Amino acid sequence: MSDIDEFIAARRAANASVLQQDHLGIKRFFNLDDAAYRDDALPGRVKELLGLVASLVLRCNDCVDYHLIQCVKAGWTTPEIVDALNVGLVVGGSIVIPHVRHAVTTLDQLAGRSDIEL
Amino acid sequence: MSDIDEFIAARRAANASVLQQDHLGIKRFFNLDDAAYRDDALPGRVKELLGLVASLVLRCNDCVDYHLIQCVKAGWTTPEIVDALNVGLVVGGSIVIPHVRHAVTTLDQLAGRSDIEL
Amino acid sequence: MSDIDEFIAARRAANASVLQQDHLGIKRFFNLDDAAYRDDALPGRVKELLGLVASLVLRCNDCVDYHLIQCVKAGWTTPEIVDALNVGLVVGGSIVIPHVRHAVTTLDQLAGRSDIEL
Amino acid sequence: MSDIDEFIAARRAANASVLQQDHLGIKRFFNLDDAAYRDDALPGRVKELLGLVASLVLRCNDCVDYHLIQCVKAGWTTPEIVDALNVGLVVGGSIVIPHVRHAVTTLDQLAGRSDIEL
Amino acid sequence: MSDIDEFIAARRAANASVLQQDHLGIKRFFNLDDAAYRDDALPGRVKELLGLVASLVLRCNDCVDYHLIQCVKAGWTTPEIVDALNVGLVVGGSIVIPHVRHAVTTLDQLAGRSDIEL
Amino acid sequence: MSDIDEFIAARRAANASVLQQDHLGIKRFFNLDDAAYRDDALPGRVKELLGLVASLVLRCNDCVDYHLIQCVKAGWTTPEIVDALNVGLVVGGSIVIPHVRHAVTTLDQLAGRSDIEL
Repeated sequence: MSDIDEFIAARRAANASVLQQDHLGIKRFFNLDDAAYRDDALPGRVKELLGLVASLVLRCNDCVDYHLIQCVKAGWTTPEIVDALNVGLVVGGSIVIPHVRHAVTTLDQLAGRSDIEL
Repeated sequence: MSDIDEFIAARRAANASVLQQDHLGIKRFFNLDDAAYRDDALPGRVKELLGLVASLVLRCNDCVDYHLIQCVKAGWTTPEIVDALNVGLVVGGSIVIPHVRHAVTTLDQLAGRSDIEL
Repeated sequence: MSDIDEFIAARRAANASVLQQDHLGIKRFFNLDDAAYRDDALPGRVKELLGLVASLVLRCNDCVDYHLIQCVKAGWTTPEIVDALNVGLVVGGSIVIPHVRHAVTTLDQLAGRSDIEL
Repeated sequence: MSDIDEFIAARRAANASVLQQDHLGIKRFFNLDDAAYRDDALPGRVKELLGLVASLVLRCNDCVDYHLIQCVKAGWTTPEIVDALNVGLVVGGSIVIPHVRHAVTTLDQLAGRSDIEL
Repeated sequence: MSDIDEFIAARRAANASVLQQDHLGIKRFFNLDDAAYRDDALPGRVKELLGLVASLVLRCNDCVDYHLIQCVKAGWTTPEIVDALNVGLVVGGSIVIPHVRHAVTTLDQLAGRSDIEL
Repeated sequence: MSDIDEFIAARRAANASVLQQDHLGIKRFFNLDDAAYRDDALPGRVKELLGLVASLVLRCNDCVDYHLIQCVKAGWTTPEIVDALNVGLVVGGSIVIPHVRHAVTTLDQLAGRSDIEL
């Protein structure tokens, strides 16, 4: 299993543990989070790019990986995604560089896998 | 003068003071920052939306105002911008609410002013 | 009007502007936020204290003021609230000091006003 | 050794290395940190819950694990702790989700171990 | 009164209010904070520069102003301070720019005032 | 290979992947980042200490390790570096402790290796 497949499997298992706690607020938050990236005034695929850059400047590798997968599934090309990463780098500064490194490493693993399931 | 016009005037004056320090690194950073939002693999107007959400989750009102002006100039409608703010709210949580309030107040002031100069 | 009354009035007006945008996700987020502080496995009043310290370490004065009002209404005494602020100070460090200063100034204004309406 | 036992062992060893540097300020900070969670105007066990939520919104897994152990030792039940995590999730947003996943995984490992030694 | 004199007066008054709460932990934290900038393995004046850059990347204007005053009192020149601000700008990114603007505005007010009292 | 040698090797490989994306903005940012630590109004070695403390309060272990290596190469002694870490600890609070533990562990590995190549 590649890193990205391990990430997806671990994420699924841990999300199931969280939902098993059966806390209404947490379940509603998870739904609200999913809904934010559906087509509305903006197309969902643009909002995936927003989620990616927000995750990058807040420096969360798991969130970056999640949105990279969604961006690749939504058809954004590698140069487009890298151009978005550059916005995050300029906004967030050199402290973001380790996460840009992580993002590019994940992007390499996602090549040719636009059918990947989360 | 409205709040937004005061912001623009104060921003111009203070940017001039910063550049007057004549520090090569700071001047190059300012150029790099401008360049990040020009058309490249992604259109500049999409990257303004990325800058807006990055500013929102990092909770910087001045940066939010700057990118709101740029988004309005780039032709994004209020519902599209509000949909982008919602992504920032979900990613960043209730701590972001005061900045969503600020952003909507600025948006109201920007109505009909897509020709505003920064 | 004291600072705290101005804060409450401005917060009400801006929240109304936000809700007027009529974005379903934002409205649901506001509801979810309110619900998180209602009695559940933990009493609501304990969760107000959690909200206060979370706001302090994330350094949001508006959020600190909001939760201070709620804590005073819930019957927490000034020494109890100050003891909670100390946890936030130790977790968040000296960068939090300006917000501790702000919080104590607000607390002074809230003396004898446990019936204040948000 | 479970993850949590490994965490405790590594934390002990590294804390010893830090204290061996014999820096007076650091030693005093460590003492101040311990003291913040002792009974004072608020009971220590309530302050452990404050420390947990502060750690969650600041997104530090090691700090979350430390306070989870302390909360379990202080007698907070799993539903009470999950209700506290929900406050942190709403305040801090979806960027906190990976840390909620981590916290629930740690909680599972702590089941029946309220006598665990840090 | 200039902005910087107002800042100093307000800071003094609010610090007095905080200390009047008579919380032992908070008082010890204030002492520890002062002690961190005294001569030790590193000279105090180098540590004021460290405090300035830490405050800048954490984006706290009050903390930036405090350390700017201390840096000017310690004899750092404007070009040296601006060179330190540039490190903070590169580490922290464009989100730091409004605070660089604030810092340079404060620096202008501090010209010729190396005898200023906090 | 020690942890620090693994870090250096992984950092080199991932930086190469990032630069291979051939994004002009990212390449210019990398250059600007390097330039910020060269002798200018302040000596480069003082600025490495600034970069270390900025990295510590922003809680980025990879950035802390990078600047620790640079500080050791620049001739700062362990007590001087630990005194700088203390400033970061006081500014950033107990949430920084896991990163102080990480930093001291890295420092131990760097003993006698002031000729290490990044």
